[in-house]
Amino acid sequence: MKGYGMFEVNKVGWLEKEKPVLTGGDAILRPVAVAPCSSDTHMSHGGSGSRTNVILGHEAIGEIVEVADNVKNFKKGDIVVVPCVTPDWDAVPLQDPDHSEAHDHSLMGGFKFLNSKDGVFGEFFHVNNADANLVHMPDDVTIEQALMTVDMMSTGFYGAEMAKVKLGDTVVVFGIGPVGLMAVAGAKLRGAGEIIAIGTRPNCVELAKEYGATKILSYKEGDLADQVRSLYPEGVDCTIIAGGTTDNITQSLRMVKPGGIISNVNYYDSSETVSFPALLWGLGMSDITITGGFCRGGARRIERLLNVIRSGRVDPGKLLNYKFEGFDQIEDAYKLMDEKPRDLIKPYVVIDWDKEA
Amino acid sequence: MKGYGMFEVNKVGWLEKEKPVLTGGDAILRPVAVAPCSSDTHMSHGGSGSRTNVILGHEAIGEIVEVADNVKNFKKGDIVVVPCVTPDWDAVPLQDPDHSEAHDHSLMGGFKFLNSKDGVFGEFFHVNNADANLVHMPDDVTIEQALMTVDMMSTGFYGAEMAKVKLGDTVVVFGIGPVGLMAVAGAKLRGAGEIIAIGTRPNCVELAKEYGATKILSYKEGDLADQVRSLYPEGVDCTIIAGGTTDNITQSLRMVKPGGIISNVNYYDSSETVSFPALLWGLGMSDITITGGFCRGGARRIERLLNVIRSGRVDPGKLLNYKFEGFDQIEDAYKLMDEKPRDLIKPYVVIDWDKEA
Amino acid sequence: MKGYGMFEVNKVGWLEKEKPVLTGGDAILRPVAVAPCSSDTHMSHGGSGSRTNVILGHEAIGEIVEVADNVKNFKKGDIVVVPCVTPDWDAVPLQDPDHSEAHDHSLMGGFKFLNSKDGVFGEFFHVNNADANLVHMPDDVTIEQALMTVDMMSTGFYGAEMAKVKLGDTVVVFGIGPVGLMAVAGAKLRGAGEIIAIGTRPNCVELAKEYGATKILSYKEGDLADQVRSLYPEGVDCTIIAGGTTDNITQSLRMVKPGGIISNVNYYDSSETVSFPALLWGLGMSDITITGGFCRGGARRIERLLNVIRSGRVDPGKLLNYKFEGFDQIEDAYKLMDEKPRDLIKPYVVIDWDKEA
Amino acid sequence: MKGYGMFEVNKVGWLEKEKPVLTGGDAILRPVAVAPCSSDTHMSHGGSGSRTNVILGHEAIGEIVEVADNVKNFKKGDIVVVPCVTPDWDAVPLQDPDHSEAHDHSLMGGFKFLNSKDGVFGEFFHVNNADANLVHMPDDVTIEQALMTVDMMSTGFYGAEMAKVKLGDTVVVFGIGPVGLMAVAGAKLRGAGEIIAIGTRPNCVELAKEYGATKILSYKEGDLADQVRSLYPEGVDCTIIAGGTTDNITQSLRMVKPGGIISNVNYYDSSETVSFPALLWGLGMSDITITGGFCRGGARRIERLLNVIRSGRVDPGKLLNYKFEGFDQIEDAYKLMDEKPRDLIKPYVVIDWDKEA
Repeated sequence: MKGYGMFEVNKVGWLEKEKPVLTGGDAILRPVAVAPCSSDTHMSHGGSGSRTNVILGHEAIGEIVEVADNVKNFKKGDIVVVPCVTPDWDAVPLQDPDHSEAHDHSLMGGFKFLNSKDGVFGEFFHVNNADANLVHMPDDVTIEQALMTVDMMSTGFYGAEMAKVKLGDTVVVFGIGPVGLMAVAGAKLRGAGEIIAIGTRPNCVELAKEYGATKILSYKEGDLADQVRSLYPEGVDCTIIAGGTTDNITQSLRMVKPGGIISNVNYYDSSETVSFPALLWGLGMSDITITGGFCRGGARRIERLLNVIRSGRVDPGKLLNYKFEGFDQIEDAYKLMDEKPRDLIKPYVVIDWDKEA
Repeated sequence: MKGYGMFEVNKVGWLEKEKPVLTGGDAILRPVAVAPCSSDTHMSHGGSGSRTNVILGHEAIGEIVEVADNVKNFKKGDIVVVPCVTPDWDAVPLQDPDHSEAHDHSLMGGFKFLNSKDGVFGEFFHVNNADANLVHMPDDVTIEQALMTVDMMSTGFYGAEMAKVKLGDTVVVFGIGPVGLMAVAGAKLRGAGEIIAIGTRPNCVELAKEYGATKILSYKEGDLADQVRSLYPEGVDCTIIAGGTTDNITQSLRMVKPGGIISNVNYYDSSETVSFPALLWGLGMSDITITGGFCRGGARRIERLLNVIRSGRVDPGKLLNYKFEGFDQIEDAYKLMDEKPRDLIKPYVVIDWDKEA
Repeated sequence: MKGYGMFEVNKVGWLEKEKPVLTGGDAILRPVAVAPCSSDTHMSHGGSGSRTNVILGHEAIGEIVEVADNVKNFKKGDIVVVPCVTPDWDAVPLQDPDHSEAHDHSLMGGFKFLNSKDGVFGEFFHVNNADANLVHMPDDVTIEQALMTVDMMSTGFYGAEMAKVKLGDTVVVFGIGPVGLMAVAGAKLRGAGEIIAIGTRPNCVELAKEYGATKILSYKEGDLADQVRSLYPEGVDCTIIAGGTTDNITQSLRMVKPGGIISNVNYYDSSETVSFPALLWGLGMSDITITGGFCRGGARRIERLLNVIRSGRVDPGKLLNYKFEGFDQIEDAYKLMDEKPRDLIKPYVVIDWDKEA
Repeated sequence: MKGYGMFEVNKVGWLEKEKPVLTGGDAILRPVAVAPCSSDTHMSHGGSGSRTNVILGHEAIGEIVEVADNVKNFKKGDIVVVPCVTPDWDAVPLQDPDHSEAHDHSLMGGFKFLNSKDGVFGEFFHVNNADANLVHMPDDVTIEQALMTVDMMSTGFYGAEMAKVKLGDTVVVFGIGPVGLMAVAGAKLRGAGEIIAIGTRPNCVELAKEYGATKILSYKEGDLADQVRSLYPEGVDCTIIAGGTTDNITQSLRMVKPGGIISNVNYYDSSETVSFPALLWGLGMSDITITGGFCRGGARRIERLLNVIRSGRVDPGKLLNYKFEGFDQIEDAYKLMDEKPRDLIKPYVVIDWDKEA
């Protein structure tokens, strides 16, 4: 079968690979809508080290083409929402209280596309533990909305959850790309008061305001922590980092109050170092918490996000501002993501297999 | 001085009492806006036992007329928001992790108006620990919005907080009086998906939808738990009880999933009993939690709620649909609250002391 | 095969049944050590309604006699610790934050022995999801210790966990049977200060002190809540109910402070009602939480409890004060449990299959 | 009055200063037992920047010599336990959920001795908010035990609390000085299974085992993270840093599992930098939390710790292995602390004012 991916670092294109094989509890799907992500381009440029011959893509709505006998809730032909994190739910570490399903048997082990198998940009792709990981595509949300739950919304909202946003908190969000925009929406939906979003791209600024940002700051107007401290001399309750470099951790330490939280959903480059003077952390005494994690996954996570959408709380479909049609267009969509023109928020591709045939 | 209150159970009117005396850390205020509450009428009818010669009222915006020397943040003439719960912040029990300030030295000891001193329907009223309990009236919210923070919004939101509403939760709210409406808004602001509000009064139903309810149920359409279970066979994540009798706890047990939460902000009558078959609670094994508490208080609570309002997340001022003007009109407003005409949500009185003079 | 169980309510004896059948991911075991539990006798007397032809028993150390091909961590001949709760880990409700595994697809659905299949008092018994539910019997704990992890220790400790015992808390434990004793040990291991255990049986009293009780109260000395309040006029932080009737909830409400927690691990009879005056709950305003749930399960839970034992924190093996040997002795052990002589804490049976042959 | 302190950085001795002045709610005490702390020596060597003419000391049992009229619970002559953190309890930031009292109006503002006023090594010292900050010296604990609650036990236990030690956790503690030893005891009292303490001094090693350490590691035996990973290939649940340099944060990142917690109670030098490769933090995706804070304070904290002691859970008095007698001996005790001979755990001074006269 054919799939768009990386032959090696910095060499992408159409790969020819074996169709994935069905095993117990699993399903084989074909993509009906996919969205390239900066994690895909990041990996293709070597951000996760040397990788060869991997089909890219981890955000998809799919159609089930084959399903194991012991799968109960799904059958051939079903259209399903596919979380980007699809854990092995019988992994013992997942039984630990508060353990994130992103780390089933190992660090980020629940993130299987790209990491331990081919992604969703193939003619077919494999999903483990179908009953626990897939969700039927509902009638009452759009395909764009559903597609945005699987990573962007789940990740951005997780930023707000790790930040433990309390009613009336003042929250800073670094970055207003798709994840940052969803972090803004998530902070609003956890009850934040003021949400200060940091970014400059005009259409993203507009969307940030629509999703709940009450102030927009830009690095062009001066040091960000200085700007925040002049607005909130006491400091802010928490920050959510959804873009940029590890320097945003240092900036955050200068922004948050004693007892505050710095929540990271940004995927750093393997060349980066986290580094800050102990003094900014109150010499270890500030009760400021630094945390960061990978997006939650599994079926219930997606069901919850769909509930949020269908209840009219937020429309993540607005993130998708470049539409492509047809399997082959995955290439163009991917390249657009890689180029990141200034007006791009997020591209996607819709695939009609009747037309493909 | 004059104040509207109860001479004894079921006998209300204008009392003549001594003006309150200033002590260290405290302030004397006069009311500039007040709202009667069902807790006032409840008490006047003997719901809290026998009480004599007490000025009623605990929801107020006030003007400081006298202030102790050691108060740092307030001076004569300041207009301030007055939380209905004004704890003694140096009470040792408050130092316990997670202890609610409503119980400073004793059960509901932080609720001082009505309970341990005269309320806010007097020409003057007393506020302890002014620096820690008062908040300057901000320019960027209306007096109606500010007035609704001190009890209605704080109480309703506390219902959502005790229910630990998670992103995408399905939530049932019993009652769509002012507290129930704020519980709906609070649930939305904690990230609820579906919010099922229970009530029948048309203008409240409209407001419930505006505040975030996605479904409205009425007891007139049949047993409530049956209705909920037919919509959500798996059960709901939590319920917030903001009205009715203890039977709503039993109803809730029939609605929530294993692991769910029943959160009560309803003030029951001293004649009531909580009673349910152990079977509805899974014979003690259901991991369903029943909790209930009194609204949070103090200055920071109010600041947080004002942040929520000024950030445009919710407008609690819409609860106030009957306006009165002048100190003497407290009587009419109180009587309206007592009569509860079908279209009443919440009355309030604005007092202009220049005109009073 | 043969198994000890109930033909119908109040009629127990040796049943002849089909050997359980292996399916994917599962294992068939034979018991090498088992302990009857009051839940077994409770059920045989109709406490869970009408049941027929069920093999009893849910506390076991077993030997694997057959194992599915796709089980990775276990093989024939392995001696394993078997949690009494063995969930289907791919149940979607388990993915909810804080959801207890006791309720996989339904209320107590994770408790499969007795409930949805035969128990462990048979020549063979079945365990679903072996990799996620079984733990290798370690060398460094005794078989008595390991046997007590699967229900008694897990349940008693869960009582302390639901009570959210904080450092220095004053804790009341109702009941000093095996679960109550483990609740005492669990409270100590969550950092409790004073632990007041309620009970009268001399050997249990001794063991309660050894496990961490600092005071022992008896209903023979007068009303329990009165006794507690005379010792702690402010009230206690939490209670753990591990025995008795629903009246202990009412007693608890009279004992705990505002903000306190009542944690129930007692399995009530289906004929019981929970009933208390609203006044004892502060008319719904006391911030007192009532919660109760079924013991946690799965492999990691057992691993954690074994870690506690091997680190020398507690020796649950002391609960077992009546030893039987041989498969047929299950009958005597069961009958002893049913009779509950005053000096019985917990009986158990060790089975050597070489001798059985 | 006379007090032992610092004239300037690196110049200590007996200072002559004005006796502190009583204001509302406050008390003046004289020390009856004090213990020098490494924070005192740290400050005298310039670790907190340039400071002049400050009396040192912040761990004390005191006798009240003067008390404000509005103090209710204490009178002249009372012997009291004095927490090292004595917040202004009416500070509005303390009203925030989860806010530590160490930061009342500002970062570490609740730590007043040394920071904003003279310490406890004077003939007299001042305590603000006496009713909320002092605790009567109980009859049933020793003066050594009580003296160790005010900082060492409170700080060490806070390390275990921030680490959110769960039942059966595997915990690493860096450092077995007095704080590290109390972190070991605290981890045990939060239910830890294995506790791996890192240190080499023989008497501390013995005490670590007595307080609950199950393994002792030494940097002399090789890289610490390598040692931990060879014992626990999956990683440990959390680390508590109670000594050393910021490199222990990096070491911790190599030790803990995804989802784990790094809890710091070590006071770093203002010259230090926290620095680690993003890769060790899973490029921001590991769900590993780094937190650190200053010891809790106030009366209730001390009461809780005294409850733990009187219930026989731990004896912190064993930390004090060098005893001095008489006010003048504060100098020798301080110098011993500064020299830190290899067998020193913690020195203290007992003062009998009858003999002093």
